[in-house]
Amino acid sequence: MRVLIKDIKNKEGESVELKGWVDVRRDHGKLIFIDLRDRSGVCQVIFLPSSAAYEAAKELRSEWVVRLNGKVNRRPKGMENPKIESGEFEVAVDELTVLSRAEEIPFDPASDISLETFLDWQPFALRTEKNRNIFKIQAEIVRAFRDFLISKDFTEVQVPKIVAQATEGGANVFKIDYFENKAYLAQSPQFYKQIMVGVFERVFTIGNAYRAEEHSTTRHLNEYTSMDLEFGFINDHTDVMALENELLVYVFNHLSKNCAKEFEFFGVELPKIPEAIPSLKLKDAQKILKEKYGLDLLNEPDLDPQGERLICQYAKENFDSDFIFITHYPTEKRPFYTFPDPTNPDFTRSFDLLFKGIEITTGGQRIHDYQMLVDNIKKWKINPAHFDFYLQAFKYGMPPEGGLAIGLERITQKLLNLDNIREVTLFPRDMNRIDILLSTLKNG
Amino acid sequence: MRVLIKDIKNKEGESVELKGWVDVRRDHGKLIFIDLRDRSGVCQVIFLPSSAAYEAAKELRSEWVVRLNGKVNRRPKGMENPKIESGEFEVAVDELTVLSRAEEIPFDPASDISLETFLDWQPFALRTEKNRNIFKIQAEIVRAFRDFLISKDFTEVQVPKIVAQATEGGANVFKIDYFENKAYLAQSPQFYKQIMVGVFERVFTIGNAYRAEEHSTTRHLNEYTSMDLEFGFINDHTDVMALENELLVYVFNHLSKNCAKEFEFFGVELPKIPEAIPSLKLKDAQKILKEKYGLDLLNEPDLDPQGERLICQYAKENFDSDFIFITHYPTEKRPFYTFPDPTNPDFTRSFDLLFKGIEITTGGQRIHDYQMLVDNIKKWKINPAHFDFYLQAFKYGMPPEGGLAIGLERITQKLLNLDNIREVTLFPRDMNRIDILLSTLKNG
Repeated sequence: MRVLIKDIKNKEGESVELKGWVDVRRDHGKLIFIDLRDRSGVCQVIFLPSSAAYEAAKELRSEWVVRLNGKVNRRPKGMENPKIESGEFEVAVDELTVLSRAEEIPFDPASDISLETFLDWQPFALRTEKNRNIFKIQAEIVRAFRDFLISKDFTEVQVPKIVAQATEGGANVFKIDYFENKAYLAQSPQFYKQIMVGVFERVFTIGNAYRAEEHSTTRHLNEYTSMDLEFGFINDHTDVMALENELLVYVFNHLSKNCAKEFEFFGVELPKIPEAIPSLKLKDAQKILKEKYGLDLLNEPDLDPQGERLICQYAKENFDSDFIFITHYPTEKRPFYTFPDPTNPDFTRSFDLLFKGIEITTGGQRIHDYQMLVDNIKKWKINPAHFDFYLQAFKYGMPPEGGLAIGLERITQKLLNLDNIREVTLFPRDMNRIDILLSTLKNG
Repeated sequence: MRVLIKDIKNKEGESVELKGWVDVRRDHGKLIFIDLRDRSGVCQVIFLPSSAAYEAAKELRSEWVVRLNGKVNRRPKGMENPKIESGEFEVAVDELTVLSRAEEIPFDPASDISLETFLDWQPFALRTEKNRNIFKIQAEIVRAFRDFLISKDFTEVQVPKIVAQATEGGANVFKIDYFENKAYLAQSPQFYKQIMVGVFERVFTIGNAYRAEEHSTTRHLNEYTSMDLEFGFINDHTDVMALENELLVYVFNHLSKNCAKEFEFFGVELPKIPEAIPSLKLKDAQKILKEKYGLDLLNEPDLDPQGERLICQYAKENFDSDFIFITHYPTEKRPFYTFPDPTNPDFTRSFDLLFKGIEITTGGQRIHDYQMLVDNIKKWKINPAHFDFYLQAFKYGMPPEGGLAIGLERITQKLLNLDNIREVTLFPRDMNRIDILLSTLKNG
């Protein structure tokens, strides 16, 4: 019966079976030491020259996969390894079975390799504590997002990624050969989650979203994971912001309970989330940027990256918050379904949530009135006939509703203060790469 | 403060605020009755001629969205509606606010409409108890799948759907214009989940999968939801089958606890899952089909639909099981990564799980040995260079591993005994339809 490495601390003096990978091998005189790695952690195992397994152990190299039996001993005083969970113990091996050999590893995956090398070698290079920590944290973010929303009566829905129309701007969309037709990869689940408000009132969906943008930045991906929610019977966008506030408190509490070790690895503290995240209208944020920082974006419809960084600095200094909502983006710069502010219809009941200098959420109230939506589609110079299917949801009674989308990779990146979004993405897709460099593919 | 309809039974004599949709409106003499629907259920509300809301209530029609205040009363004896949760109570309305009007509905969505009509009108037609029940059950299947696997130390991963190579047969794959290159929609997360076994040992992922097959059957979709898992340190495919057995017991227990009402609606009983689902080698299943049912598939590499139905009938009659594993499919008919049976390498350590006459899972042990995998790729006449990235995972030490994929829509369909997989799919994609009929798109 296999014992996980994290549990050997409860097995002192007992014989155990371990399975895992050779993480590192060290020879000290006649003794062979191995750090064995499994999904639960790392521990030291030792082969004495007197052991029946000693000869076979001489062959072992990094990444070989083994099963072994041995006795759990307390390490000699002063020889403990406080960095690992079972560091006061080691296993003296009696029996060794090699389950799988490995070729000589091309580099130490835990060493300081370039991002390009990491991406070229991801199937191998992901096998480090750093990467296990990143993607463990990401899995726990997803889990907490879901658990919170289920506790709030939201229903999870599975929605299509193949769509017949580009939903939010026709340019940045990937085309698919769909039998005799052209189809597109969905830029977001927007239309479907709105439709489903008519069915379940409260829905969420987690899945891939696509942007065919020709950018190569540290914060954009062409395929990313969007965590979306949408719900009805709101008063305005502030209900959506309040829900996100509560959601983030839940997620971060979950992370602090379940990923303390992982955050410690990065030397990162989880940000405190205020009970009420500060909020500024875009216009007011722009005024502050001009007055406090001399950055003039007064005539812009948005904040630029520098503006986002500075307004986050402002939130940190003035509200002790790593988060700030920016609201009331101009109507002409938001999608046609965005609800205009009745007090000034040039601006919308929309918001972005900025976190450590970057937008991690876009959300707002949507137009729920059928005629208002049709009129807006026309104003945007789109043919409403293209949206007949979507419009049914509004034609037959939709409550005031709104929602938001959180970019999973972005929030992970900023939480861990990592430089490039590709570091927190399993197999990132960009203009140059689908697993391998596309240029290699062309030549090959 | 809004009260949900399911909670009015605890509010007798109190004033409550309700929000929801007009489900049905009935006039009885001077009284106006409305069935109000929210995410929690349906209840009767009543407008007396003496109520201030009476005049406004005259206007109300199906699917209008309202907020109302009124008093919860016990219905007169003999007037209870036992079919609904709060059927012993009704709300006498004092105040009514119309939040959203609806156009006259084109048909009663709960009536017996054709599948084509349902699909044309899905945003509206999904608003029935039947459909809420279907997609509630589906959400709970996903939730239970995930909860079970997390409890077994599996880590959820997000993997790409844009791929550079067709993984499992080049013909049935959708092509994408990917900047200057061609890319494809993933037929499954197979390669990525296998790679991630090297990182986490145990992983699962839930997401869309794509088959560009030109079929139009009641059980195929071109875009479906695949619930995938993969794990290391197995002995053979029977470990994967045992895990699936345990998983299904968990999922069905979860459903019986959380969806009793929904199953009752369909008049369906949850199938019993045996402690050990019966299992037959394909060859033995074929012999039984010949001997018992006169169906000769002895020289076929698979069961045909009729064979699947009959062998399920056999399992029901002989083992009292709605499930049966069929194992040891021929090597030549399984993907190159399938582990051959060492005792007879013409057959594989693979399995399908059949449920009520249809395959809902494919799984098995995979080849974890690098050289064996490379040799097999060559045997399949594929260029191993195309798989360099994937192969890294095996070059650098992979334990014996296996996994499976469950089709979410198929298991939902069979659980509910529904005729067509499109009935259990939000916005199904097939050769003829992406929301609307593609022929309409062409002409429009």
